[in-house]
Amino acid sequence: MSDQQSIRQLKEGDAVLGFLLAQEAAYKISAKGSEYLELKLADASGDLKAFLWDVRAIEGDMEAIRADAFLWVKGSVTSYNGRLQLKLDKVRFAADAEVGDFSRFFPVSARPVPEMLEELDGLLASVKDPWIGRLLSDLFVADAELRAAFAQAPAAKSMHHVCLGGLLEHTLSVAGMAEHACGHYGNLNRDLVLAGVLLHDVGKTAELSYQRSFGYTDAGNLLGHIAMEAEWISRAAGRIPGFPEELRLQILHIVLSHHGRLEFGSPVLPKTPEALLVHYLDDLDGKLEVMFRAQRDETGGGAWSPFSRALERMIYRRRWSAVGDVEN
Amino acid sequence: MSDQQSIRQLKEGDAVLGFLLAQEAAYKISAKGSEYLELKLADASGDLKAFLWDVRAIEGDMEAIRADAFLWVKGSVTSYNGRLQLKLDKVRFAADAEVGDFSRFFPVSARPVPEMLEELDGLLASVKDPWIGRLLSDLFVADAELRAAFAQAPAAKSMHHVCLGGLLEHTLSVAGMAEHACGHYGNLNRDLVLAGVLLHDVGKTAELSYQRSFGYTDAGNLLGHIAMEAEWISRAAGRIPGFPEELRLQILHIVLSHHGRLEFGSPVLPKTPEALLVHYLDDLDGKLEVMFRAQRDETGGGAWSPFSRALERMIYRRRWSAVGDVEN
Amino acid sequence: MSDQQSIRQLKEGDAVLGFLLAQEAAYKISAKGSEYLELKLADASGDLKAFLWDVRAIEGDMEAIRADAFLWVKGSVTSYNGRLQLKLDKVRFAADAEVGDFSRFFPVSARPVPEMLEELDGLLASVKDPWIGRLLSDLFVADAELRAAFAQAPAAKSMHHVCLGGLLEHTLSVAGMAEHACGHYGNLNRDLVLAGVLLHDVGKTAELSYQRSFGYTDAGNLLGHIAMEAEWISRAAGRIPGFPEELRLQILHIVLSHHGRLEFGSPVLPKTPEALLVHYLDDLDGKLEVMFRAQRDETGGGAWSPFSRALERMIYRRRWSAVGDVEN
Amino acid sequence: MSDQQSIRQLKEGDAVLGFLLAQEAAYKISAKGSEYLELKLADASGDLKAFLWDVRAIEGDMEAIRADAFLWVKGSVTSYNGRLQLKLDKVRFAADAEVGDFSRFFPVSARPVPEMLEELDGLLASVKDPWIGRLLSDLFVADAELRAAFAQAPAAKSMHHVCLGGLLEHTLSVAGMAEHACGHYGNLNRDLVLAGVLLHDVGKTAELSYQRSFGYTDAGNLLGHIAMEAEWISRAAGRIPGFPEELRLQILHIVLSHHGRLEFGSPVLPKTPEALLVHYLDDLDGKLEVMFRAQRDETGGGAWSPFSRALERMIYRRRWSAVGDVEN
Amino acid sequence: MSDQQSIRQLKEGDAVLGFLLAQEAAYKISAKGSEYLELKLADASGDLKAFLWDVRAIEGDMEAIRADAFLWVKGSVTSYNGRLQLKLDKVRFAADAEVGDFSRFFPVSARPVPEMLEELDGLLASVKDPWIGRLLSDLFVADAELRAAFAQAPAAKSMHHVCLGGLLEHTLSVAGMAEHACGHYGNLNRDLVLAGVLLHDVGKTAELSYQRSFGYTDAGNLLGHIAMEAEWISRAAGRIPGFPEELRLQILHIVLSHHGRLEFGSPVLPKTPEALLVHYLDDLDGKLEVMFRAQRDETGGGAWSPFSRALERMIYRRRWSAVGDVEN
Amino acid sequence: MSDQQSIRQLKEGDAVLGFLLAQEAAYKISAKGSEYLELKLADASGDLKAFLWDVRAIEGDMEAIRADAFLWVKGSVTSYNGRLQLKLDKVRFAADAEVGDFSRFFPVSARPVPEMLEELDGLLASVKDPWIGRLLSDLFVADAELRAAFAQAPAAKSMHHVCLGGLLEHTLSVAGMAEHACGHYGNLNRDLVLAGVLLHDVGKTAELSYQRSFGYTDAGNLLGHIAMEAEWISRAAGRIPGFPEELRLQILHIVLSHHGRLEFGSPVLPKTPEALLVHYLDDLDGKLEVMFRAQRDETGGGAWSPFSRALERMIYRRRWSAVGDVEN
Repeated sequence: MSDQQSIRQLKEGDAVLGFLLAQEAAYKISAKGSEYLELKLADASGDLKAFLWDVRAIEGDMEAIRADAFLWVKGSVTSYNGRLQLKLDKVRFAADAEVGDFSRFFPVSARPVPEMLEELDGLLASVKDPWIGRLLSDLFVADAELRAAFAQAPAAKSMHHVCLGGLLEHTLSVAGMAEHACGHYGNLNRDLVLAGVLLHDVGKTAELSYQRSFGYTDAGNLLGHIAMEAEWISRAAGRIPGFPEELRLQILHIVLSHHGRLEFGSPVLPKTPEALLVHYLDDLDGKLEVMFRAQRDETGGGAWSPFSRALERMIYRRRWSAVGDVEN
Repeated sequence: MSDQQSIRQLKEGDAVLGFLLAQEAAYKISAKGSEYLELKLADASGDLKAFLWDVRAIEGDMEAIRADAFLWVKGSVTSYNGRLQLKLDKVRFAADAEVGDFSRFFPVSARPVPEMLEELDGLLASVKDPWIGRLLSDLFVADAELRAAFAQAPAAKSMHHVCLGGLLEHTLSVAGMAEHACGHYGNLNRDLVLAGVLLHDVGKTAELSYQRSFGYTDAGNLLGHIAMEAEWISRAAGRIPGFPEELRLQILHIVLSHHGRLEFGSPVLPKTPEALLVHYLDDLDGKLEVMFRAQRDETGGGAWSPFSRALERMIYRRRWSAVGDVEN
Repeated sequence: MSDQQSIRQLKEGDAVLGFLLAQEAAYKISAKGSEYLELKLADASGDLKAFLWDVRAIEGDMEAIRADAFLWVKGSVTSYNGRLQLKLDKVRFAADAEVGDFSRFFPVSARPVPEMLEELDGLLASVKDPWIGRLLSDLFVADAELRAAFAQAPAAKSMHHVCLGGLLEHTLSVAGMAEHACGHYGNLNRDLVLAGVLLHDVGKTAELSYQRSFGYTDAGNLLGHIAMEAEWISRAAGRIPGFPEELRLQILHIVLSHHGRLEFGSPVLPKTPEALLVHYLDDLDGKLEVMFRAQRDETGGGAWSPFSRALERMIYRRRWSAVGDVEN
Repeated sequence: MSDQQSIRQLKEGDAVLGFLLAQEAAYKISAKGSEYLELKLADASGDLKAFLWDVRAIEGDMEAIRADAFLWVKGSVTSYNGRLQLKLDKVRFAADAEVGDFSRFFPVSARPVPEMLEELDGLLASVKDPWIGRLLSDLFVADAELRAAFAQAPAAKSMHHVCLGGLLEHTLSVAGMAEHACGHYGNLNRDLVLAGVLLHDVGKTAELSYQRSFGYTDAGNLLGHIAMEAEWISRAAGRIPGFPEELRLQILHIVLSHHGRLEFGSPVLPKTPEALLVHYLDDLDGKLEVMFRAQRDETGGGAWSPFSRALERMIYRRRWSAVGDVEN
Repeated sequence: MSDQQSIRQLKEGDAVLGFLLAQEAAYKISAKGSEYLELKLADASGDLKAFLWDVRAIEGDMEAIRADAFLWVKGSVTSYNGRLQLKLDKVRFAADAEVGDFSRFFPVSARPVPEMLEELDGLLASVKDPWIGRLLSDLFVADAELRAAFAQAPAAKSMHHVCLGGLLEHTLSVAGMAEHACGHYGNLNRDLVLAGVLLHDVGKTAELSYQRSFGYTDAGNLLGHIAMEAEWISRAAGRIPGFPEELRLQILHIVLSHHGRLEFGSPVLPKTPEALLVHYLDDLDGKLEVMFRAQRDETGGGAWSPFSRALERMIYRRRWSAVGDVEN
Repeated sequence: MSDQQSIRQLKEGDAVLGFLLAQEAAYKISAKGSEYLELKLADASGDLKAFLWDVRAIEGDMEAIRADAFLWVKGSVTSYNGRLQLKLDKVRFAADAEVGDFSRFFPVSARPVPEMLEELDGLLASVKDPWIGRLLSDLFVADAELRAAFAQAPAAKSMHHVCLGGLLEHTLSVAGMAEHACGHYGNLNRDLVLAGVLLHDVGKTAELSYQRSFGYTDAGNLLGHIAMEAEWISRAAGRIPGFPEELRLQILHIVLSHHGRLEFGSPVLPKTPEALLVHYLDDLDGKLEVMFRAQRDETGGGAWSPFSRALERMIYRRRWSAVGDVEN
């Protein structure tokens, strides 16, 4: 079913056959008293409301039809009040295995994951400080589960880099800028900065859920990614015999303070140059990504993007490029 | 030297002989080019400037004369510009051992520490939840070092309960109110609340320094007590086989959120009734202590206390007690 | 008509006959130029849109059909766009007298009013300070109208304890906690605290309207409950010969400052321990009620409540109860 | 003693004989163990430290020598560390009666009080609304005590119009602008505006103490002037049979909301045009007075005033006046 | 077509023939795959959705049918879901010239523009300071384009005086109050105040677009009206030989600071009495206009206006006028 | 007089002969009625109080002895209350010309000005966009006065880069980081960014006074550097025939928004990626400089700097450098 149409391309009357992700699923009672199934089905290109009016047409376990499940569906595109929807004839639960490549169902980073992992490994290899090198290696190489999650998680639920691989993409971009900054400002400890950058959002792999839809985990809501990653770092450092306490404090300080202000969820303010730098470059990278995306997106047309809730302003899309020549 | 005069009692001309705590110490050069020693010497009753004009009168290592050291001094009280100061004839460093009972040098809790520890143990014994009981016991009984620090630390550097034993006094007071609240509101998990109360400030044992003067440790400034105690709790829970993850999250949540608002240093808001309760009772207890102290203190006289920086207001000291009788 | 179906139980096709409360009522002109009546009808279980397409079917005075009136209606349940509504055949205004027990139409406190009034009287009887006792008695016993309103009013329009009797329920709950606090902290004047608690929201009886729907009165919007109750207290005190001015100031201070911060509508900050305590216990009680309600409510399912506008966060619903046993 | 020198005119060596106001007074113990009296003595032109080294030279009751008392003193001007001070030979308490005209001791309004009272009476006479006229007359004419206080009180402890008569001066200035505004904007009820203006700060007569020094009374600190005047207005309205409730609400609303924002101590926001106007004109008048004063004052010289804490900025003193002529 | 019905008067079934303003215009694809035109058509009385189902019925250039264009339309009023809409039979672009008087399409100031311009000229003629007079004359008289725009622009996109001529109406109203204030407060430079008032919002002529609908221009969004008018003033002053730098600074200061606070977009705080006055009177005038409008408007009925987003509160509509007489 | 001792090196009894800068100067009257001169004299290493007790010893015009003047002085170092001061025998005004190299009197940038100007010229030469190139060249090359001021001004009065040449040093540092960022993020217009960086603080050359002491000019206080440089840019662009309006808007937007938030004095928020970048890099560079300086400075000793008012926190001075090796 590699040639399944993407949702954005569907037109009224089209037949639909294949796998879709159920973002929402609810059994409801119609005014006439009969039970029906209402779904929101999605792939990476968009989503549609879908209805199965006769629940007896469900194959297999009805309970398996729930939010965040993949479904195999058969039906056709209809129009209601000017909006397209799916009228389903058959629905059944689909195991992950038969669905194949997940990337069809989620927004993904523009950069291929293997390429990004290679860049990550290059950064790890460049670390000269033995303690920092060991700590990062324990977390990003030896811990295969964390490495896999780090390569897959988005950077946020909304705001910026909201796509699979987004966390890694954002982290590497900040790391790139940090490399430049360490060259530019002579007084920074480059390896310490790099540790701060690579670790500053690593807790998002557990704060966010992103297997099927992007949201917060219970632990994410209760603790937040900063507290999570602080714990992971301390635990990892604790397993390295002789790990210097001073270094543990400085790395934790960068991570704890990287939101820059208490009201943004950092329990302490940045008090070292390295912590200050990581905060600024992280914040800048996220906000620039929102701006670049707003400039590429053409929703609504015109020189101004729709109001961005992430930045609380509209973005000016018109880009200046030199024209003509100065008269003399 | 049990009959050494307290600093508050000294008058001009008195001889001074005995141990005092150096809160500040600096070697300076006089306008005439000779080196002298300027000190701020304290006991629990107050402090005085002190000068040793001839540094050759120092016995032993000059470098040992530094802030937060105990000193043995000999000298007399003089007056300069209407203020008393000490003119020293001899000074030497004094080891802790010879100084004896530290409580002469620091403000101490009004409640005896042994009595408070007994109350703490009673609370620990009352816990019915096996996991919570084990966790608290591991931290407050089995870890003798933490137990000792918990009995000695102040609750804050300034603000409230600024005395040795103040942390324990404050914690027990909050626990007492929490017991009442759990009886009053039926829907609270009492053992969970108790865990939150006992652990909410335990990181202050490491955030604050209080052996000689009250201040912040480096780690305290870089991480804050909330991040510290969160780590300790996770580590302790990690050492208890089978410790329920759900419980770990709920306890950590109380601790992380107990400042109540992000701008006060909590990375998450209280999202459970237990967390909300601990936040309110903690805040209330600290602020009430400030008010009671302001009412007892009679500085400046009158119905109003001096401006309290902790509460950003003056406190009304006049207490209402019923007088006379209603006419009918 | 005691067996009238509650609105939540209605299904398409059901006949409806009986009394309902009009929360909204408007005469409108259809696109075809004919006049019809559009209503929002409610009982304690919920509400429904209702339409009378032929206004000639109204019995009696058309003008009496307005918001906050009880109506006698006859009609049937229909469905439009998947939502139930009422198609009415007959409507007439209904006097309060024929409607009978109002509690069928409004959310009511879980605690019976007589039981709560008894608890209130017990508190009044426990006051030892003769002036405070007389003041409270004049307001809550001698003033029958205020007593009745105090027993009926909700504690708020939204936020917390939004039900008939809610103000009394909330007040008694705060009083219960205050009793514990006065026992716990030795330095509080218990009768003064009690006066503050019982009076802190009494102005809500006039700030809110709650005979038919919950809203603000004109006076409530223009003055707020704090200014209202301050006036009532001063007037009541003024009628007691010899009432001590110092006591009047201290009670008024508690009431005026009980929102705790200027930006929350208190013109002064709490400057006595009694005022501080009343503020904290009031705030805590209201917020805990919101949390308990959010935990009981199962809207949307899952571990998290919908976003609470009162608390500006989601509430975690999962409650911890001990399981298993610690391995040794 | 009408020709007593003002403090600002004193030079070293001058003899001093006459009445001065003690702003501060304290008995202290010198380093040599003898008791002496330290005073801060003031008249309207300034203040000086003063010392009586031999307390046996006090005539009459030593206890009567306290802050805010008038004293009769005899001594001479000396200089210490470049500052003038008084060395006293004799001191005794002086009753108000013998002191004569108080205005020698306090800053006073630039406008004579009788002239201002006449203007006030003219405004009262211009009121057409019978209820408003009666209310204002009851408060500002019939209540002789309030009228006297209203003519004497300052408008604030610091900030603006800090002088005897300042409250009346400020009130009349706002009233003058309000008259203009009512003429300019057609939709305002002029008598209602006038009532709001005249009453908006009347509680300051009891919030502030100003017999000897400017400060807050206990009641002022506990209730604030807004709550006080609201009570007075309600009480006065309650004594006028048939006083319209709607009018009482609208006047109280202006008074309660006149600080314009909750965080500035108003429990409600201005919700009528009259309330909005009174807020703006009150605020403007106070701030302009600060600016005009800063421009007249030449402290420090230069184009900029010292930092004004009332306005949180420096004021530009240079005033533009047209020069030269435009070339054509 | 002078007798064209206004949109507010249309009823179902009415024929429509004439010019309307397209506030929105979009070509869309129906579910059946055919292209149609969806419009929002407006005149000064209101707006309606309109549909042309067969785009072949468009006369002339389809591309000319766009937002902010005038259109000639022919069609009839239909009803859909209880709302009126237009079903169009023919549509074509209409040049401004054939449309005639624009005031039929936009809300306009209640005051006639010629009358307002006359008042403006009177103010200009009254200026005594030669430099200020010349500057204002260069901008408001000599610059015909600016004068025309100043007479046509609204004062804001939303908030207050949102109508053609609104900027001039608001400016003159502030100027009127400013005249009173300069008479009332003796220390103000009247001509400087007047310059500040007339210039304080003149940049809105370029910040806002108001030829067809009210919005922000690109430059308005990028620079804001304050920066724009500051530039214009500097440029105009620069063209007057010998224009005093001190005066330029003082005028610019008023303009730059007139929003009163940094967070409202003024880069500096008002530091002169003239700047403070202009800020307060400007703010007051705008807010009063919102209140008066809310009182006149009867939307929703009752004593309270709907929630005003401009003022973040509801407005009390009931106006007090004296009734009855005081009993004696 | 190239071998004049610096102020920091002076000891009691030293003779002083040479030029010093008068930061403060005042003629005062001693308690004995004679006139004396009190000065604060400074060079780059520090400052001292100085007194000339006999004003007849002044050579030349007494009026020329004023703040911010260079003085030639002769006297000796004395000690008063433990502080050194100068007792002067002779004083006269000194013209700039005879003083020679100013850098002896002010803190100066660590980078030589010629080197920095060369770097600036290199950046200018690298601009490809003809309009931007011309604009920058007109301002930084053709306008010799501005170029000279740009090379001399500090970057701030306090906060960061407070030294002669500091503005240029800061600007070049931001430019360096901006070059890296433009390489890193592909979507930025490098020449536009560079223009924004070079121009973002150029108004400080006129906002600050720095010939003698660092402060604000009148224009600086009244307008702020943002409004000043916006005007200069517009004027310069206006003189280049055909300068594109779109480019002018985009450059002005960067400059106007570069403080990032309205409450920090930017009248608009950054709405383009280029504006966002300039804001972040400017802010980061200033704050890093403060941190690096705090780490280099050893005032007070210890791991923590004194409280930095610029950053509202203490800075951690201990720098991590790898030690030892990881055990395997």
